[in-house]
Amino acid sequence: MSVQYDDLKDLVKNENQIMIDNIPDEYLTDTLKRLRGYADVVIKPTSTEEVSKILKWAYEREVPVTPRGAGTNLVGSTVPDHGGIVLDLSLMNHILELDYETLTATIEAGVLLQDFQQYVEEKGLFYPPDPGEKTASIGGNISTNAGGMRAVKYGVTRDYVMGLEIVLADGRILNVGSKNIKDSSGLSLKNLIVGSEGTLAIITKCILKLIPKPEISISVVVPFDSLESGLESVLTIIKENANPTAIEFVERKVIKLGEAFLKLSFPYPNAQAYIILTFDGKKDEVSANLSRIKEVVLHKSALNFIILDDKKLSENVWKIRSVLVKAVEAVSEQEPVDIVVPINKTLEFIKYVNKLEKETEMQMVSFGHAGDGNVHLCVVRGNRVESEWIKEKHENMAKLYSKAYELGGITSGEHGIGLTKKEYFLNETKNINLELMRKIKSDFDEKHILNSHISYNL
Amino acid sequence: MSVQYDDLKDLVKNENQIMIDNIPDEYLTDTLKRLRGYADVVIKPTSTEEVSKILKWAYEREVPVTPRGAGTNLVGSTVPDHGGIVLDLSLMNHILELDYETLTATIEAGVLLQDFQQYVEEKGLFYPPDPGEKTASIGGNISTNAGGMRAVKYGVTRDYVMGLEIVLADGRILNVGSKNIKDSSGLSLKNLIVGSEGTLAIITKCILKLIPKPEISISVVVPFDSLESGLESVLTIIKENANPTAIEFVERKVIKLGEAFLKLSFPYPNAQAYIILTFDGKKDEVSANLSRIKEVVLHKSALNFIILDDKKLSENVWKIRSVLVKAVEAVSEQEPVDIVVPINKTLEFIKYVNKLEKETEMQMVSFGHAGDGNVHLCVVRGNRVESEWIKEKHENMAKLYSKAYELGGITSGEHGIGLTKKEYFLNETKNINLELMRKIKSDFDEKHILNSHISYNL
Ligand SMILES: Cc1cc2nc3c(=O)[nH]c(=O)nc-3n(C[C@H](O)[C@H](O)[C@H](O)COP(=O)(O)OP(=O)(O)OC[C@H]3O[C@@H](n4cnc5c(N)ncnc54)[C@H](O)[C@@H]3O)c2cc1C
Ligand SMILES: Cc1cc2nc3c(=O)[nH]c(=O)nc-3n(C[C@H](O)[C@H](O)[C@H](O)COP(=O)(O)OP(=O)(O)OC[C@H]3O[C@@H](n4cnc5c(N)ncnc54)[C@H](O)[C@@H]3O)c2cc1C
Repeated sequence: MSVQYDDLKDLVKNENQIMIDNIPDEYLTDTLKRLRGYADVVIKPTSTEEVSKILKWAYEREVPVTPRGAGTNLVGSTVPDHGGIVLDLSLMNHILELDYETLTATIEAGVLLQDFQQYVEEKGLFYPPDPGEKTASIGGNISTNAGGMRAVKYGVTRDYVMGLEIVLADGRILNVGSKNIKDSSGLSLKNLIVGSEGTLAIITKCILKLIPKPEISISVVVPFDSLESGLESVLTIIKENANPTAIEFVERKVIKLGEAFLKLSFPYPNAQAYIILTFDGKKDEVSANLSRIKEVVLHKSALNFIILDDKKLSENVWKIRSVLVKAVEAVSEQEPVDIVVPINKTLEFIKYVNKLEKETEMQMVSFGHAGDGNVHLCVVRGNRVESEWIKEKHENMAKLYSKAYELGGITSGEHGIGLTKKEYFLNETKNINLELMRKIKSDFDEKHILNSHISYNL
Repeated sequence: MSVQYDDLKDLVKNENQIMIDNIPDEYLTDTLKRLRGYADVVIKPTSTEEVSKILKWAYEREVPVTPRGAGTNLVGSTVPDHGGIVLDLSLMNHILELDYETLTATIEAGVLLQDFQQYVEEKGLFYPPDPGEKTASIGGNISTNAGGMRAVKYGVTRDYVMGLEIVLADGRILNVGSKNIKDSSGLSLKNLIVGSEGTLAIITKCILKLIPKPEISISVVVPFDSLESGLESVLTIIKENANPTAIEFVERKVIKLGEAFLKLSFPYPNAQAYIILTFDGKKDEVSANLSRIKEVVLHKSALNFIILDDKKLSENVWKIRSVLVKAVEAVSEQEPVDIVVPINKTLEFIKYVNKLEKETEMQMVSFGHAGDGNVHLCVVRGNRVESEWIKEKHENMAKLYSKAYELGGITSGEHGIGLTKKEYFLNETKNINLELMRKIKSDFDEKHILNSHISYNL
């Protein structure tokens, strides 16, 4: 049947929730704006019921639907490759309940991470997941199982999702998970939805676990004369059982880009690499851990141990750390990678990257979450012409992923597979695992209208 | 085709891994030994390859398979209701690797919890999940997503499963999860297997997360003059942010049964109910938390605050706590329930139980994990004749589950659904959730040979 997108106007409260002509370019891409799809319509539902009606409508007509939170992903997962509907959840941004007794919040999926963090912190509570991009939506965070800096101590988004309200491709609404802390009651559908990149269902509401806000949080910059010696120290730090919140690593050359991008300066410019640590918790506990780690790393190869007790300096350091992807991007096109390897393989992986960089003369800057083996790499285009870039990038990516898997690693630690890593993920993942994922996809969305172009889909 | 069970002998190393005649009664039941199935054969594989061959053989012949760890479940989940093969994993009990760098252990599924806990603790490490029955197997713990005492601080079994080797019903072997800390690479098959009660696949190997062993662990008994005032204190304790490891509650009348069963005595016999708390971690931290909580509960309605610094006394208290199901069982047949409700609803639920007990004159003893809303109830037969017991038990169970769901609770917090709770679970769970579970079941096991009689299956 021929699809009358105009009919969608009857399904929502207000006509201006729908754009059919003049769809702004941002809806056709992700945050890197390199891949571009096309869309017949962008809809911004304001309620679960609207989402349900829209999906039912789309399912009957087999119209592809691309859910979209804040569009901050780096992997092309919001690129509407098959046309159809872009379902923008940004108007579903209400905090519905803060339950002090169960320490949970119930919110709509479009709430932005920064708004949610601020809201709970003002009330003395804390939502630990802390991916770099604070303007992402919680629904997007859940769909990618976002990680971030504090995962070393607190775990990832999955660990804070207690329950979800979801809408299936055919429009049926259901709840998975609950406010209950324990659950051995049937298959964990909730855990299937977390990290499913919008391929199984649309998340409309989320019950999130909170914890009391830590008394204090203190960060430290530890400079080293090489990335290798920095990474060696990471394992030592982890073994010390000092419960760090974050362990980040970054090379000086990358920091320079961040400094230039933000016009801010980072401490100890004469180093080659840095480890940035955070400790949070009770005051005594934090200072005990700080002094223990200080001793240990200075005894190894650390050049200094700079406690960021100055608020401004601390903010600058984290601002620079958080902007690195964008800072690299500002200099040259790059391909971001978020490979994860078992923590004791990080150094071996980075050494391989450095070797590959030399051999291929393609710049590869690495930084990331050293405390959990999650390596952020930017493979940089430099002044290659398009065809060269595509060919060489592709060869190098294949090598990087192959090395990661050889070390027991996997494609993505937190960004998801999307479109840009799909080929590598499909190559490296066993057929039997993919077969099961695809069957499950069909269980949830038989007609494959939801994000069927990305991730594990063929 | 007619099934020649004798042929199975060719698939294993040693004939005595197979029992065809004279199958011991324990293989036909669970730990309560009330429900009884029948089996054509019991096999004890010694390797993943044997499991794979056996399943392939069974799948081709559509022979039902009931996986069995240590058989300690209380819900009939190892009752081979459809005959066929009982697959006993107890010989696959080897610890394969302890990886200090990633803080993981790789073990076979048949390793017993008590052996594993002892092994890692001797090495200064710690496996936090701690369900009451220490002779359970880790494979069984994973299959039921076992919880236990320490879940308040440390979470449940799911939180410690990093990777699994599994064998599908048709004999294909695959790995789900890995040693990587973060994972946003496709659907989380691992999380589907955890808690699936042997309905999707056989678990053969497990990669488990460990943590450094806490410096000390101290328990406290807090007596109250009513269960209600004890439970009211629990919410206060949780809000205090003192990070307790365990918060158990139990009525005096239940403790008495435990005392009689073990011939041990529990402190402060003049109370009506007790809260048992544990705190672990660094010495200073624990004693700070202890004194804070002491002040808070004595300020409320606690009758005393008995720190179990005597090793013997502490052991006795936990022995009594751990034996309660068996102690109740020794007096009269009972039906164990492990309903979970949101923590702030525990008291309301318990009040309902007490009301129902009065109304129906059916004894209901409650104890359990107050810190996570996981209520263990024993509904006691007393001297009812069989037909009365079945009828009244059934009516009361239906009421209890219905109340739990009304309060936002669910059927099982840690024991699983098995056979005995299946009816209530199916009644209370939305059809759409069940439909998805069943479709997923078929993805993994199209011919439904694995535990297809239990849990969410029709
Ligand atoms: C500078 C920068 C730093 C970053 N740092 C980190 C980091 O440290 N850790 C990290 O994990 N990520 C990081 N990211 C990546 C990105 O912010 C995350 O992937 C984020 O979780 C995406 O959220 P979003 O709302 O923007 O989702 P989108 O980009 O809008 O969508 C992401 C995926 O989720 C789906 N989706 C979105 N909302 C829903 C919904 N409600 N229901 C169903 N599907 C939905 C989309 O279809 C898409 O597949 C970073 C990005 C940038 C630009
Ligand atoms: C006194 C007592 C106290 C208890 N306390 C607790 C408690 O505090 N917390 C708690 O969670 N439980 C508790 N339990 C219940 C029981 O110990 C747990 O359910 C335990 O996890 C079962 O492990 P098992 O090896 O005995 O499994 P089994 O009883 O053999 O099997 C349980 C289920 O898992 C399946 N299964 C077993 N092994 C595998 C495998 N390798 N692959 C696939 N499927 C498999 C079986 O088919 C069955 O469905 C208690 C039991 C008793 C008797």
